[in-house]
Amino acid sequence: MSTAQYAFGMIGLGTMGRNLLLNMADHDFAVAGYDKDAEKAAALAQEGAGKNVKGFSDLNEFVQSLSKPRAVMMLVPAGKIVDDVIAELIPVLDKGDLIIDGGNSYFADTNRRVVELQDKGLHFFGMGVSGGEEGARRGPSMMPGGDPEAYKVVKHIFEAIAARANGEPCVTYVGPGASGHFVKMVHNGIEYGVMQLIAEAYEVMKKGLGMTNEEMQQVFEKWNEGRVKCFLVEITKDIFKYKAPGTDHLLIDDIKDEARAKGTGKWTSQVAMDLQAPLPTVDSSVAMRDMSKYKQLRVQAEGLYGTPAQLDANREQVLADLESAFYFAMIVSYAQGMHMLTNASTEYNYDLKLGEIARIWRAGCIIRSEILFDITNAYTKNAGLEHLLLDDDVKTKVSGAVGGLRGLLSKTMAAGIATPAFAASLSYFDAFRSGRMPSNLTQAQRDYFGAHTYELIGKEGKFHTQWTAK
Amino acid sequence: MSTAQYAFGMIGLGTMGRNLLLNMADHDFAVAGYDKDAEKAAALAQEGAGKNVKGFSDLNEFVQSLSKPRAVMMLVPAGKIVDDVIAELIPVLDKGDLIIDGGNSYFADTNRRVVELQDKGLHFFGMGVSGGEEGARRGPSMMPGGDPEAYKVVKHIFEAIAARANGEPCVTYVGPGASGHFVKMVHNGIEYGVMQLIAEAYEVMKKGLGMTNEEMQQVFEKWNEGRVKCFLVEITKDIFKYKAPGTDHLLIDDIKDEARAKGTGKWTSQVAMDLQAPLPTVDSSVAMRDMSKYKQLRVQAEGLYGTPAQLDANREQVLADLESAFYFAMIVSYAQGMHMLTNASTEYNYDLKLGEIARIWRAGCIIRSEILFDITNAYTKNAGLEHLLLDDDVKTKVSGAVGGLRGLLSKTMAAGIATPAFAASLSYFDAFRSGRMPSNLTQAQRDYFGAHTYELIGKEGKFHTQWTAK
Repeated sequence: MSTAQYAFGMIGLGTMGRNLLLNMADHDFAVAGYDKDAEKAAALAQEGAGKNVKGFSDLNEFVQSLSKPRAVMMLVPAGKIVDDVIAELIPVLDKGDLIIDGGNSYFADTNRRVVELQDKGLHFFGMGVSGGEEGARRGPSMMPGGDPEAYKVVKHIFEAIAARANGEPCVTYVGPGASGHFVKMVHNGIEYGVMQLIAEAYEVMKKGLGMTNEEMQQVFEKWNEGRVKCFLVEITKDIFKYKAPGTDHLLIDDIKDEARAKGTGKWTSQVAMDLQAPLPTVDSSVAMRDMSKYKQLRVQAEGLYGTPAQLDANREQVLADLESAFYFAMIVSYAQGMHMLTNASTEYNYDLKLGEIARIWRAGCIIRSEILFDITNAYTKNAGLEHLLLDDDVKTKVSGAVGGLRGLLSKTMAAGIATPAFAASLSYFDAFRSGRMPSNLTQAQRDYFGAHTYELIGKEGKFHTQWTAK
Repeated sequence: MSTAQYAFGMIGLGTMGRNLLLNMADHDFAVAGYDKDAEKAAALAQEGAGKNVKGFSDLNEFVQSLSKPRAVMMLVPAGKIVDDVIAELIPVLDKGDLIIDGGNSYFADTNRRVVELQDKGLHFFGMGVSGGEEGARRGPSMMPGGDPEAYKVVKHIFEAIAARANGEPCVTYVGPGASGHFVKMVHNGIEYGVMQLIAEAYEVMKKGLGMTNEEMQQVFEKWNEGRVKCFLVEITKDIFKYKAPGTDHLLIDDIKDEARAKGTGKWTSQVAMDLQAPLPTVDSSVAMRDMSKYKQLRVQAEGLYGTPAQLDANREQVLADLESAFYFAMIVSYAQGMHMLTNASTEYNYDLKLGEIARIWRAGCIIRSEILFDITNAYTKNAGLEHLLLDDDVKTKVSGAVGGLRGLLSKTMAAGIATPAFAASLSYFDAFRSGRMPSNLTQAQRDYFGAHTYELIGKEGKFHTQWTAK
């Protein structure tokens, strides 16, 4: 009798799936994995030698090996495959079992699946998992959403394997429905923003200051010891050390300047627009990923319009401004994402705890950073904080750094070095602190040409004017 | 026997619908209108007294009054109402009849309707109509898409009533399927962009230069006589003359700075992201419409962070830069929209003629402008032009104006005046003319944390590196 002995099952034994199981096994959970591909099941057995881990390539045997209520997680590509796996699972699972989708599924798909499986007595969790292969093995950040009662079945496992920040596990019950995948989507949007900011810092140093790779490496190395310390800077300093095998130059110089995307950043921007939550730093990152695709057009345009000038300024001053600029724009990126979560929480009744979300992002995930400790504090002090930039401590930090960004952009705009995400971050800030925006003119125009009406200050109602009648 | 005598029928007799019919009647077409609301049908009869116009409030009588193949257009709010009207029409129309949706329907809805009605032997046209009430009455710009054979039924009517530019009617057969509504959506996206640029010009003059409404009025008046002449500037100069009734100050000062939107600009940004066509000027306009909603937060933020400084520069110089900046950014807005159309044409097999589209936008519509004459020329010279900014004549104009935008942004960024659409336009240009973008770093990062692979210059294939292995 060796049936029903495993506490957790994983479907899809790629590196991520295998690593998460091995992580669980390290924490003394007995775990099972399934993959149609017998080689992957064998790889799990091999890597897990000596641990309480078993690989299956027969779905039925796999399911029967799990203790009830079963917790079955899948790490498979988002889209149709998720539905296929669910369809295979439905007949072999029992009422009360949990299915956890740990991939980057679109949250509206997750909503649909929650409802479909509810009707069959199964709990469906959409769970964001961040940290890549390394995070999965040593401690990811996890964002599970679904039924709060069902979460108790897996809570202790996830808390054991999660990354830790200040000793606290980087996982929490996020909220109902698709909230886990929603929060992960916004995480990825912020990730796009920060990556674009780093790319622009690279552009400024390379084209604007004519710095060598070695000099840039030193800057990122230094950044990673200061207030802008974060995982994405950490890996950047490594990338600027990695030589193309068998050569004397960096691999990064051989890589095409055409960035791919899996779409989660795009979703963030598109959904933010539906929620009327402005997210321009992410929007500009998405636009630049797209722009990078048009290599041939860009080369033609450079031929027509020429290359940018070097920055007309002292290098040390520009580097100091750049660090401030990056610090400021990172905070603004997070602020935009948190504001989007605030809106989503209301719109979809997620009842999100923003302090908890910032807390579980402090370690394990791709956007982990020193700044997230401040953000956690801001929402812990005031759970009802309507916008991160309205927190007093954040205000002090932002106010101290904005001058650097102003200085930087004055120069890059003049010299012609593309810094769209930096510019979008500053413009967002300057619009946000406008008690009076120029949008009254927009309203007047809309009423003029389309009779769309306008509203008046201090007077209820909607009004229309024949603007040409004098 | 007075049946089947009308050449064209309109459903929905609001101002737009009535005005289009009266326009047709002025051109000697016998036309019929239908509205459930008998008062609106009566209003048509009254306004059309002496012309060959008849109003109905019985759908069946209305349909029977039309000559075959019938052309029935609807001008009703986008969404469910369009489907409701179609459902009412199906049983009373005959095979070969045309239904034309002249509203701002989402193009994917139009696609669905085209297919549904094809099965019933009916032709469905999605037609963008721009120009507002005034345009409808005196000559709109129209963007019809659908079956090219069926278009012949209405071609002569639309060509008669359309606005004229250089004597040519501002209507053309756009393409198959939902292409008409798609092109109108992009038109509206460009409209959002230009409106935001004008709002930012207002912001620069008001907050940055401390100019009075009268002084700003003179600037817009002057602009409307130069190279930036366009409908949106024309109405702006009027708005800056219009006093709040019974007062001595301008109405615009009483209007709330919270801009509404009907969603067509948002759709443009969202769909551009799906098509991987960067459209950051429009994106930033959508973000600022959304930002304007958060009045209370903005007022709080202004309290914390303060108001912007005046620009540290000579007023005449700033105004000269501002005009150049607006000229440049307008061209870039159109260029982004045209590039999106190029992508859509390939993706959806629309086979769009970009020169024709620019041509029919030169008069009648909201984005009509002097610049569209240059754009028409660029695509007429070279129908395969891959990007507007690669045209030689456009290049000359853009190159002459970019300095003004650089000068302007250096100052607004330093002073803290929000100019997001100006900044997005310049950043787009500077990224577009980058033969080498910093996106190689983005690819390296993605491969580092997510094993997403990268591509190498001059070497086929996808590669993955263990970046930490040294």
